[in-house]
Amino acid sequence: MAAHAVSVLITGANRGLGLEMVKQMVEASHPVRKLFACCRDPEGARAEGLQTLAKKHPNVIVVVRLDATDLSSIKQCAKQVGLEVGTGGLNLLINNAGVLAKSTLQETSAEDMQNAFNTNVLGPMNIIKEFLPHLRAAAKASGIPGMSTSKAAVVNISSFLASMETVKQSYALFPAISYRISKAGLNMLTLCAAEELKDDQILFSLLHPGWVRTDMGGEEGQIDAPESVQGMLSVMASLTEKQNAAFLDYEGRPLAW
Amino acid sequence: MAAHAVSVLITGANRGLGLEMVKQMVEASHPVRKLFACCRDPEGARAEGLQTLAKKHPNVIVVVRLDATDLSSIKQCAKQVGLEVGTGGLNLLINNAGVLAKSTLQETSAEDMQNAFNTNVLGPMNIIKEFLPHLRAAAKASGIPGMSTSKAAVVNISSFLASMETVKQSYALFPAISYRISKAGLNMLTLCAAEELKDDQILFSLLHPGWVRTDMGGEEGQIDAPESVQGMLSVMASLTEKQNAAFLDYEGRPLAW
Repeated sequence: MAAHAVSVLITGANRGLGLEMVKQMVEASHPVRKLFACCRDPEGARAEGLQTLAKKHPNVIVVVRLDATDLSSIKQCAKQVGLEVGTGGLNLLINNAGVLAKSTLQETSAEDMQNAFNTNVLGPMNIIKEFLPHLRAAAKASGIPGMSTSKAAVVNISSFLASMETVKQSYALFPAISYRISKAGLNMLTLCAAEELKDDQILFSLLHPGWVRTDMGGEEGQIDAPESVQGMLSVMASLTEKQNAAFLDYEGRPLAW
Repeated sequence: MAAHAVSVLITGANRGLGLEMVKQMVEASHPVRKLFACCRDPEGARAEGLQTLAKKHPNVIVVVRLDATDLSSIKQCAKQVGLEVGTGGLNLLINNAGVLAKSTLQETSAEDMQNAFNTNVLGPMNIIKEFLPHLRAAAKASGIPGMSTSKAAVVNISSFLASMETVKQSYALFPAISYRISKAGLNMLTLCAAEELKDDQILFSLLHPGWVRTDMGGEEGQIDAPESVQGMLSVMASLTEKQNAAFLDYEGRPLAW
């Protein structure tokens, strides 16, 4: 489980679900040993909560700059993490950073579409590729057969809005076409990665956090961030090779593609 | 059916499936009245076959420049088509132009991903948006209740490689990760458009042409372009509001998302 993984990296860790994940992971009864909490601007006003938390847990939390849309920052971050984790590798990579625009087809623009694609698809792709050596190192170092998030895993935060089967039911309330397209792309990326890297024993999984009251989810959300994160961490802890390439919600229920 | 639609537009009409569609549509026993055959470079060597066909059917085929990655060319094309079709509108828009790179996750690049996204997702999106007034005009002008490709419809050429459920079975043989991600995005775009525009009585559908022996499909394909196109035109002819937002192969069989 996440709490037993030796080293974890979370993107978009300065607010919302990302910050809550950091909080619960370091305050768990079995906290992680090293947590790389990444965000675009660690020195900015929007990272104050994360910095406060990092000061409380200086031996565990390492705040690192990472902008999912900037390949050089991803490479730089991967280099730094590599130096810290060494041959033990990185056990768990959580691609949580994402953007959401709520537009319909008729309202959206090429810029909106590009923006969603760059942050929500290309970002995770580049991050997975750059951290692959550290994930492979973790899989090798573990010595345990099978797959788990305490061994070597990538969890990509997706959404029920990426589900093709439920567009009919959900579109009128949440159009968000650029977000849906990007998260469907993320789902496909994850399935391909899972298939390509299964022999490396790296687990890939897609999680839907629920409709959460955060900056992104808005005030009408159905649950709060702590409940969502508690659920997701518990689901992460339960993942084995049987759930490789699965698309699950924060309570572990499978979602339709 | 396509052959009964008054006006049809096809992108990527200079070769492969696009050129074969033009051929079968104008040579049918009930040919279309006006066929806008679009390609990036109508004066280039790769459009010679299309130009020869257009000379044989000068009253039906209008060759128009359209580059799916160039919004100004899309706007220009929509303007020209609008002048030709007038209040009768455009009955059927076939987004056939597309690009395919065969790379795995580890081989692909940001450029490859952007390229696939721009041509296979952003292109159809911009084309749908710019031609929407003409599609709406056709739906209004028809006077027939319900939906059909002879009234007002968009057919997006997708692929079984966009199916999330079959990645496990098909990935080793056809990785094509950027193509899969873009076609999954196209599927989502189509579902959203179908939902958003159902009250305008514009039908949206996704077709998988089969594995065809073309420049894109390669020599190992299972069928030839004439068989694929014959199947797809017959499926298009059969579409009603019951198949709105459907994902079908060239024989009319539904594909899993």
